[in-house]
Amino acid sequence: MNLPAAKDLAAPSDHAAAAFEHELLADIPLARAMALSVAGYDGRTLTLAAPLAPNVNDKGCAFGGSLASLMTLAGWGLLKLAVDARGVDCDIYVQDNAVRYLAPVWQDFTAVAQLDEDGSFDEFFAALAARGKGRLRVRCRVPLPDGGDAATLEARFVALAKR
Amino acid sequence: MNLPAAKDLAAPSDHAAAAFEHELLADIPLARAMALSVAGYDGRTLTLAAPLAPNVNDKGCAFGGSLASLMTLAGWGLLKLAVDARGVDCDIYVQDNAVRYLAPVWQDFTAVAQLDEDGSFDEFFAALAARGKGRLRVRCRVPLPDGGDAATLEARFVALAKR
Repeated sequence: MNLPAAKDLAAPSDHAAAAFEHELLADIPLARAMALSVAGYDGRTLTLAAPLAPNVNDKGCAFGGSLASLMTLAGWGLLKLAVDARGVDCDIYVQDNAVRYLAPVWQDFTAVAQLDEDGSFDEFFAALAARGKGRLRVRCRVPLPDGGDAATLEARFVALAKR
Repeated sequence: MNLPAAKDLAAPSDHAAAAFEHELLADIPLARAMALSVAGYDGRTLTLAAPLAPNVNDKGCAFGGSLASLMTLAGWGLLKLAVDARGVDCDIYVQDNAVRYLAPVWQDFTAVAQLDEDGSFDEFFAALAARGKGRLRVRCRVPLPDGGDAATLEARFVALAKR
């Protein structure tokens, strides 16, 4: 009996992440301008990366709008990848968010998104199936190289079924 | 006796706003990517404008990151123009913000920034002079063509004197 190798089990997520990156860059001009890429996805955590150069501000560190945009896209992408994996046809919108800027970022950076501890994909998909609308809270962070966070975002997203 | 015409009285602000737009586009690549411009400035309210095309999302309406970035830059610019007008040499950072996305935006858009009702430039400049650090709260909105808001942002900024 042949058990699948770990890399084969991970393959669907890798493929989905690559397709997501392609879509993001094709559909959202600002994502292209930020030169973002998918740095990691395991089904529960999505990490997006961006180089500093196209995302600097007047002080030479990362522009707050770039940090917030990368975190918003990481949170949005976490849900997009989940609905795509289940073949659910819906649009996902950010409803509101709170951002804290804790330290300047002087190098390339990443944004790491995962569900809020209260959030559950099961409840979200049940609501989406029952009422055509589901909500989820996501937490994102821009980690500093030495530990700690440069910025955090807490956001609420809504998904609306298309049919 | 010749009284200055209203347009001449407005000239210093117009000049400052044009210089600010030039700096913004020169220093912040993402501002260029968003194709933003200064649409109005009267010393108390700053309005930035952006076309839809470079700021769309996957659904063809305005990308949340663009709305948030334009509002953040409008708030930041309101303070930048005030410190520049008084010749104060300082860096201005966004500390935190809360964004609400209320309606999709299907056309070119603006972000309008003004001080929070509790905020005062006098107190801000007094703190900056006394302690080298001043904080101000700013409210921004993206108005809808038919009235109401497509998005709002409340942000806290800090200014740090350079010397």
